Formats: sequence, structure tokens, C-alpha cells
Amino acid sequence: MLVVMEKSAKKENIEKVCKIIESMGYKSHKIPGPSRTVVCVTGNDKKIYPEKILTIEGVKEIVHVSKPYKLVSREVKPDDTVIKLKNTSIGSNKISIIAGPCAVESREQIFEIAEELSKRDVKILRGGAYKPRTSPYSFQGLGEKGLEYLALAGEKFNLSIISEVLDTESFPIIENYVDIIQIGSRNMQNFSLLKKAGKSNKPIFLKRGFSSTLNEFLLAAEYIISEGNPNVILCERGIRTFSNETRFTLDISAIPILKKMTHLPIIVDPSHAAGIRDLVEPLSKAGIAAGADGLMIEVHTNPDAALSDSAQTISIESFDKLLSKINVIKTL
Amino acid sequence: MLVVMEKSAKKENIEKVCKIIESMGYKSHKIPGPSRTVVCVTGNDKKIYPEKILTIEGVKEIVHVSKPYKLVSREVKPDDTVIKLKNTSIGSNKISIIAGPCAVESREQIFEIAEELSKRDVKILRGGAYKPRTSPYSFQGLGEKGLEYLALAGEKFNLSIISEVLDTESFPIIENYVDIIQIGSRNMQNFSLLKKAGKSNKPIFLKRGFSSTLNEFLLAAEYIISEGNPNVILCERGIRTFSNETRFTLDISAIPILKKMTHLPIIVDPSHAAGIRDLVEPLSKAGIAAGADGLMIEVHTNPDAALSDSAQTISIESFDKLLSKINVIKTL
Amino acid sequence: MLVVMEKSAKKENIEKVCKIIESMGYKSHKIPGPSRTVVCVTGNDKKIYPEKILTIEGVKEIVHVSKPYKLVSREVKPDDTVIKLKNTSIGSNKISIIAGPCAVESREQIFEIAEELSKRDVKILRGGAYKPRTSPYSFQGLGEKGLEYLALAGEKFNLSIISEVLDTESFPIIENYVDIIQIGSRNMQNFSLLKKAGKSNKPIFLKRGFSSTLNEFLLAAEYIISEGNPNVILCERGIRTFSNETRFTLDISAIPILKKMTHLPIIVDPSHAAGIRDLVEPLSKAGIAAGADGLMIEVHTNPDAALSDSAQTISIESFDKLLSKINVIKTL
Amino acid sequence: MLVVMEKSAKKENIEKVCKIIESMGYKSHKIPGPSRTVVCVTGNDKKIYPEKILTIEGVKEIVHVSKPYKLVSREVKPDDTVIKLKNTSIGSNKISIIAGPCAVESREQIFEIAEELSKRDVKILRGGAYKPRTSPYSFQGLGEKGLEYLALAGEKFNLSIISEVLDTESFPIIENYVDIIQIGSRNMQNFSLLKKAGKSNKPIFLKRGFSSTLNEFLLAAEYIISEGNPNVILCERGIRTFSNETRFTLDISAIPILKKMTHLPIIVDPSHAAGIRDLVEPLSKAGIAAGADGLMIEVHTNPDAALSDSAQTISIESFDKLLSKINVIKTL
Repeated sequence: MLVVMEKSAKKENIEKVCKIIESMGYKSHKIPGPSRTVVCVTGNDKKIYPEKILTIEGVKEIVHVSKPYKLVSREVKPDDTVIKLKNTSIGSNKISIIAGPCAVESREQIFEIAEELSKRDVKILRGGAYKPRTSPYSFQGLGEKGLEYLALAGEKFNLSIISEVLDTESFPIIENYVDIIQIGSRNMQNFSLLKKAGKSNKPIFLKRGFSSTLNEFLLAAEYIISEGNPNVILCERGIRTFSNETRFTLDISAIPILKKMTHLPIIVDPSHAAGIRDLVEPLSKAGIAAGADGLMIEVHTNPDAALSDSAQTISIESFDKLLSKINVIKTL
Repeated sequence: MLVVMEKSAKKENIEKVCKIIESMGYKSHKIPGPSRTVVCVTGNDKKIYPEKILTIEGVKEIVHVSKPYKLVSREVKPDDTVIKLKNTSIGSNKISIIAGPCAVESREQIFEIAEELSKRDVKILRGGAYKPRTSPYSFQGLGEKGLEYLALAGEKFNLSIISEVLDTESFPIIENYVDIIQIGSRNMQNFSLLKKAGKSNKPIFLKRGFSSTLNEFLLAAEYIISEGNPNVILCERGIRTFSNETRFTLDISAIPILKKMTHLPIIVDPSHAAGIRDLVEPLSKAGIAAGADGLMIEVHTNPDAALSDSAQTISIESFDKLLSKINVIKTL
Repeated sequence: MLVVMEKSAKKENIEKVCKIIESMGYKSHKIPGPSRTVVCVTGNDKKIYPEKILTIEGVKEIVHVSKPYKLVSREVKPDDTVIKLKNTSIGSNKISIIAGPCAVESREQIFEIAEELSKRDVKILRGGAYKPRTSPYSFQGLGEKGLEYLALAGEKFNLSIISEVLDTESFPIIENYVDIIQIGSRNMQNFSLLKKAGKSNKPIFLKRGFSSTLNEFLLAAEYIISEGNPNVILCERGIRTFSNETRFTLDISAIPILKKMTHLPIIVDPSHAAGIRDLVEPLSKAGIAAGADGLMIEVHTNPDAALSDSAQTISIESFDKLLSKINVIKTL
Repeated sequence: MLVVMEKSAKKENIEKVCKIIESMGYKSHKIPGPSRTVVCVTGNDKKIYPEKILTIEGVKEIVHVSKPYKLVSREVKPDDTVIKLKNTSIGSNKISIIAGPCAVESREQIFEIAEELSKRDVKILRGGAYKPRTSPYSFQGLGEKGLEYLALAGEKFNLSIISEVLDTESFPIIENYVDIIQIGSRNMQNFSLLKKAGKSNKPIFLKRGFSSTLNEFLLAAEYIISEGNPNVILCERGIRTFSNETRFTLDISAIPILKKMTHLPIIVDPSHAAGIRDLVEPLSKAGIAAGADGLMIEVHTNPDAALSDSAQTISIESFDKLLSKINVIKTL
């Protein structure tokens, strides 16, 4: 349920609305907008009798939301969410490029890559420190050491940094180092982790589960926002289908559909979707053409030597070529 | 197996190679290229002992093809296939737009739409006359009358025309009217129909089965070419996955992968992939950005009144907007 | 729409009902049942005003059917359909075993296998004569010669025979030899072939498309029945999913669901679902345990020498073992 | 890599082998069998030069394992793993029935159901206390209170109990109450949770991710065993496909395939696969017929009043009917 306030509504009346909602045992979420404030009610299984609220001064109307998700919905908040970072922002008529290696491998490696990227249109550096690996016997990342190198590189080259969190226990460590916390595809329905992320004051980069519907994806984001963290970035990274020429099937239609359903920014990850280096450029172009707010790309100064995801990592040269084309498409 | 001829090879020696291959009980296919001719051998289960062939004058080398498909393969024919039509061509650094209504509904309807399209960048008019319908109780199309109207419209407005064939029996009727014969998704592995198409001298527009791998798709095209018809246009129109927000999931990665595997032109059909009008523009842009040679789009002067596929049919106004953006992307 | 007649309704009044329906431009289908006759109306897009019909003597009531399919529906015909063959029947509390090689390879081969099967619980012999093959270069079957051998074997060992039809053109040839006509998975939405099958007086064995929903499957059967042939046998043979350990994923749940939706018999084909010999027994047992009316199994006296589908074909010994277990499960 | 010891090998020599392996920086796992002990080496990326090991007394041979998983593999341990519980065991020629409500709702509810089940063939009681819910606004379970009631019911009626763990943080709480710890489908690749489970001395019930390949499933189990906990029970609970008549598609073929790949017991969960009450019996029968070691079924004394999963929960009466049939099939 939404309580739409008049443009002229006083702050104290907005607070009054919230207080009444809370006194009924529900949660209230203030959603400020350019032309008016909306108070969203969550936690109500049954319908709320709104008489008490409608009589408060400054309340314009009450709207019942039909979707299972609320706080992520465009119905509730029509304006694009913009995620502010120290050196840039994500969302709303702006293409953000997140680039870097699959995993931080050494201080030298991440500094070398960060330097190259900082000379280009990149403001956000990626690098895995704790890696989710299908096999217990695969390289699991450098851990905190990796985060340290990543943070130093970010500082030196004025880049925001992003790295993946694997569990609630190591959450504080990652949160301490990075500017954006990534939750991976396999953890999209790790509800404890989502709740933890909802209590962080850092933006959350949420990857779609590779077999999740868009409804489930938005409900995962709703978990985060309903705990108090409104800064969620969605990422489409391919779904699992019968098609076996690529690792996953990039669900390109998800982008325009999500744009309608939600106000959150949407990033495309062509590297993990394809799993093949040569597809990164065409899928990047397609993603931006379909309306994505940006790209997350695995780039390495020496792709063939990358310790993980080598097959899908592109070189600085390929990255340059890609950027120049993206810059044209994004103007359309 | 491929027999690669010297650039200077004489025509009579190429014929000699073919004759020897045929005498062994196999088929030979001459594939002329800008720099040399290749003779492709099909129908051989076992390896052919090539001594007899290697000694013929003008034979440069023999190459064994590792893929299950041969004639469609870029390995066999590196140059893009270009399909020539009366008023335009499809393939190789050129964007072709095929547009028109789902079904021909009346003389007036198809003339009105054809006139509008002919004023724009459209050279090929689509329109179903025999419709494949999931239910026996749905509108099945106007039949031959529909083809007649379509042909008249094509003539009047100088448009090539395309329509779908449903079976071998009605093949001659469709072949008689249209410039391009369409084989639909549900018939992609109708092998009798593919063989029939292989004996036609009209280009074949082959839609990918909605659950077919790219390998199966190319083998379906191989059926057509191996019967003697080299003019095949491939069409990606969405695959069936668990994702349920769109009718099908456009497999955008298929485009760059097919471009590597085959020399045949690839068209994207965003209308059937999405099943939703609003997605036609973003998916069209994504398709061209990913490298497609063109688009097939359902357009109607009055989309809401369309007798079939109304939900995915766009208006002339939306079509105009789309075209202007496509024209920029295709230059990249 | 259904016109339910009284138990005591006279034949002439049933005819009267049909005549009125036809005079309105629709089709009428008489569906006799043990306790009463029902007349099903198809071809009506809009609602029919039933006053004219309700006043006819013997008409009990009019029922509107909510499903897109009608004639295949249990709602329309609650009693199981039983398909009568010269030496046995299929459907309704009876397990039918259809067995034989993937393809008829020679007179000797099919006679040898037929003899072995006839000594066991088998009344129906399968054998492909025209084979649908993904590649144009694979073995395409013996054609009419294969049908001839199959028919001779059926006659000699008192077996009904079944073989696949690939197109409308060869339909009369297959129809001439076999007792049951098979329409394969790739042709499930070949609507011309379905209509042709609907005009045959031989039972049709319809395999589910490997990416078809149950709704589409039943509408394909509806195509056949609506043309006048009520004798359709459904076959679940596996669907295409991401799971890659088997050729297809046997959709075991389809069996109990179809049993509720339709009165038609349902056969399970574990051989094509799995593509692996060792899985034939467990999947056969599972199929019968889930409620199937029978099995179609690829059996060969020398599986390793089979010209096609060798990997999924079982030996006579394995078949014996399987039959003994099936006989227990079917009693549950 | 496996070091196979002679039957007569002395304990001290087995220890010697382990010590050498550990000194090389790898892990060693002793796998005792009825006829001999095997030492499995994990953590080696590269090949180990086995001279040092082969010369130890009692070493019979060294076998290189080709699969990505090792400890779960039948190649490594041919004998079925049997999980011992206080009142029963799971695995190896025995059908185990795990039954109970989706969620523990109250002391009365779980006691009433436990009493009914204990009168039947049930030795293991299920009941969710911490529920993974797609929406943050759905009923999330009673938490520790629920575990307490479950444990009291288990004690009173001599039932082992199983409940789901959602995260590493609450792991010790669940571990403290239950006899078997369940890891749900959405957590199958929550690697931190798997590692935690690997350090527990309670058996782990691992549900297959609804889009996981069998390879990924076994590698998830490998995570647990490689940390030291050999007691893993696998559960097939349906995969996500295009098929939309059931919530998920029970992958019945997975059972016989897993039986070949691994020595771990395999349980089928028909309730979650189908999501429809009427399908529980046919899918249970099919699961056992296909070779499963048991079933996990949602049963409630008043299914329609169940707070969660009501649509797929069966009554005690239906459960009785099901059990009597299962008992026949399992003898085959």
C-alpha cells in the first residue's frame, strides 16, 4: 500500500503517517520524489483500513500495489534511482563501465590493470578476492589480501571498487574495503545474505540467479531495500537454457522489461553470459542498445595468463575498440 | 571433404574432379569464390582415399571438414552469401528490413501497409497467407487469395514479397507468388519440406526452431543447400526457456556465433521473440548491434485491429522511430 | 460447447441436434458414452445462442467448455479411449508394450526380432522405414521396402505394426502398410500432417514435441480428432532442458497430468528420452508407476550392431528382465 | 588420485601414505571398504609423481580419477554409503520415508502429525523452522521455537528429525536440535554453508539446485565431504524447465544416473517438484521405481489449513494409500 502525500505536505505530517503505520505493526518507508513524497507500507498480509491515515493533513491518496514487490517498483517510485559513488554515479541516462580482472592475483597485476583502465572511460574497478567456485579444488581467491590490493589500486587511480561477498560472516570485511558490494548469481536467493546487505550503507550489486524469473529477481532486491538499503544495482548475466554454444544465454529482453518494472539501474555482464572472449563486444553493444545503464566486463592486460575466466577475459586493445562503439550507441 | 582448386584451375579440370567424386557414389558441389573454386564432397560416411583426385591438374589441396555441416560452413566458403532479389539484396554489410502485417487480411489492408512501407527504407514485404496455428479453431489465413493480394501489392509498390509455406503440397502455390519462401519455426525439422525447398530456385527464409541448437539449425539449412538451393537466409526468432515475461527468449548470442559458423545472412525477428509491442524497438536495436544482417518486423497501419499477433505488432509511427535509430547502429 | 443428451434420447433427435449445429456453420461431433451421448460443437468463435437446441427432445443440458481443446478433453468425454487393433487394444487398465528396432534394416533382422518379441508379452512391433534425421548425410531408412518387411513380419508373427510418417506425400504409402501411424516429435506441430492424419481411419501415435507444453500437445491431438479420427495415442518421449546427462529429460509428471486432462491413452518412450541403454529399465518402471498405459521400447537382437540409435537400444535379455518387473508394477 | 592399499595393509602403512601426501601440501582422505582401504588425494592441481608412495609397503596401486569430483564418486568408493541415525538408517536397499509438514506451526500441530506418522512406516520427521521465502513479506517460520517443538516431538515419538539451515550464522542452532541438517535448493551453491556443513558431525541432506547439472550437484556434495563430513544424502526435487503445468519438472532420470556416479543415498521430493497434491502419489511411485533410496513428503493432518505449501501437502489418508503401494514397488 502506498500513501501519496501532497506536494505541499509538511514533514511532521509525513512523520505522523509513518508513526500510525508502525503502530499498526507494519513497516513504513519514505520514498522522496521530485514532486512529492510517498510512504510505502510493507509487512501487511491483509488489507489495511485507511480511514485513520486519510484524515491526516497532507495525505493526497492511497494506492494499492498489485505486484508482489513494492519498494523496487516503478509504480511506487517513478524516477530512476541514481547510485552515488565517490567519483561517479550509476543510473539514469549515463553509461557506467565496470571493468577489471576476474580475480585479484597480485598487487602488480591489479595496479597494472587499474592504471590502464583509469586512462580510459572507466570509473569502477572490479576484482574478485573471495571466489565462488563450483569445485572445492579450484583457486578460491586471495581473500583479504586481494581486497587490500584492490583498495590500494582504487585509491591510487581514483577508481571506485567492487568485489563479491560470499557469506554473512565475511560481509564486514568486504564492506570495509569496497565501494560496491557484489552478490553473485548463486547467492541471489541467499536470503540471510540479502538481509545483511539490506543493513549495509554501501550500494549492493545484485546479479540475477541464472535460473531466476524477473519476479524472483525483483523480490531479492526487495529483501535488500525492505531492510533499509535503497541502493541496489541489478545485473543481467545470462540464464541457463538448453542452448549450449555459450556458457549461459544472455536474456537481452530482460533489460527493457526490468526498465519498466523497476526504477533501479541495470547493468549487463556480457563476459559471464557468453564465456567466450569474441562475444564480449557484440553482447556489450546489444546490451547498451537494449537500454542497459552500463556494463561489467572482465579485462586483463594479459588475458591468456588470467588465473580464472581466461576464456572470457578481453585485452586492453579489445576493450578500447568496444568503448568507442558503445559511446555511439548510448547516444541513441 | 573439400577439394581446393588452384586459382588458375581450368573449368574442365574442375568438372573432372566432380565427375570422379560422383563416380565414387558421392555428391559434388562447386562453390566458386573470388580467389578460387572449392569442390565440396557430401554423402561420404567413410573417408575417401584422395589419390585419384590429388593427381588431377589444378587441384591445390584436400581439406577434411570436422563439422557435421559442410555447405553452410564458413570453413568451406569464407565469403558472405548475398541473396539477390529483384529490387534489393540480403547479406554482407547491409541492413535489410522485412516488414508487414502478421497476416494478409484484405486487399485494402495489404495495399495500405505496403504503400506506407514503400515510402520508407523497406524493400521486402511480409504477410502470412497460410498461417500455422496452435489451435485448429483459430483463423488459418486467406490462403491463395492472400498470396494474390500480397503479390499485387508487391508489384504495385516495387517490393519483394515473402510468405510462409506450411507443407510440400502447397509449396508450388507459394513458390509461384513469392520472392522469398519462409519456413517457420515449427517446420525447421520438417525434413521433407526442407528437401522440397532445396529443389526450388527461390531463396528460403529459414526460422530457427524454438528449441533447436545452432548445430541443428545449420543442419536444417544444410538439407536445403545439399539439394541444390544455395540461397538460404537464417532467422533467429527466440527460443523457449523458463523465462516467462516474454513469449520466447531472443537468443542474442546466436547472432555473432552464427556469423562465425556460417556464411549465410542472419535476420532477427524481434516481434515473435518478444510477443510484446514495446520490446520491438529495443530488441531490434540489440539485434543490429550484435551483428544481424537485418530485421523482420510485424507492422500494421492499425495494430490493435490486426487479426493475429496484434499484441506484438507495431504502428507506422513506432516503425519510423525504430528505423532512424537502426540506421545509426548499423554504421558501427 | 457440449450438448448433453438424455440417456433415453432417440437417435433421430441426436441427428437433429447435429443438423442444427451444422446449419449454423459449425462442426458437430457425436461422442457416445456408456450412459449417454454428447454432441460437441467446434468451430465457434463466438457464443452460440442455444434456444433452438434446448427445445429439441432428448437434450438434457448445454455445457460450455473452458479449455482451448475440446474433443480430447476428459470434460467432454470422461471415459478412457480404447484403441482397438487386430490382435490387441491400447488404453484403459492395460499395459501395452510396443517394441522393436529403431529402423528396419533387412528382412532377416526384422523377422528375427519379431519372432523373439512375439514369444513375449508384445503385441505391437515398431520399426522405422522413413527416418527423420538431423543431418542430411545420415542413414534415412529403407523406405517402402522397410514397410514391406515390417508388414510381412507382422503378419507372420501376428503382431500389429507401427511406423513413422514424415510427410503428407508419403502418408498413403505408410497408411497402406501399418496398423498404427506414428507422427514424430519434430512433426507434432506440422499442422498439414495432423489434418491428413485426421482423415485417416488408422490410429495415430502422436509424440510430444520435445519443447511443447501439454496444452500444445493436446491441441495437436485436437487437430487430428477435429478432422474425424478419434483414435489418437499420446506419447511422452522427453523434453529439452538444460540437463545434459541424458538426450532429453523424461517429463514423468506429464503422465498423471495428461491422465486428468484427456481420455486418450498415454505411452512412455524411455529409449528416446534417455538415449542411454542402462536407463531404459528404470525409466520404464517409473513410467508405468506414474500411470502410463504402456511403453515404446527400442529392442534389437544385437543392439551394438543397430544402424541407428544403437546407444539406447536394449537386448532381448534386458527386455525380459524389464517385462517381469513391469508386470508387478502395473497391478498397483 | 587414489592410493589403493592391499587388503592386508597395516594401519601404520596407511598412515605413512597419508603423511607423505600431506607433506606434499595435499589433503588425504581414508576411505575404508569391506575388502580394502583406499586413500584419496585432493587439492592437487597438477599430477603427483607417485614413486615415493608406490614404494611404501601395502600400497597395491595408484589410480588417476578422471572426474572433477572424487570423494563422492563410485569409482573411489564402490559401496553404497549408509547414513546411520538413532532409530534407523538411510541408504542401500532400504526405502526411507521422511514426512511431516512444510513448516512447524505450533506445538500441537507438530505433535499431532508426529504421532500419526510414528504409527506408520515413518522414522524421520521433517518440519521447517527457518523458511527460505521468495518474498520478504511471506511467513518466515517460527525460528528456534519451531526447532524446539520439532525436537520434543522427535523425542516423544522416537523419530529422527530434519530441518533446513539457511546460513552459517544460525548453523549451530539448527545443528544443536536436529538429527539431519537440510541444505535447500537455493543454497546448493552457497559454498560457505557447504564448508560449514563439512565440519559438522551431523548428516547433511543436500537438495539439488533447481537449475544445477548433476556435475554441479556432486561437486556441492564434494565440498561437504572434502571438509571431513562423509554423511551426505542427495535429494532430487525437480528442475526448472519451460514446462509450466507443475512448479518444477521432476528429473526422474537423475536417479539412476546418480546411482552410477556416486555411492551416496538419493531421496526424491515429489511434493516440491510437483507443487500439486494429486501428483505426490504417482511421482513417489515413479521415484522408487526408478531406484531412489527414499522419499521426502509433505504431510499434514489438515493440509488445507497448512500455513505454507498447502497446495502440495497431502493428508494422512492419502499418505497411507501411497505407503502401501511403495512397499510393493521397492521389492522389485
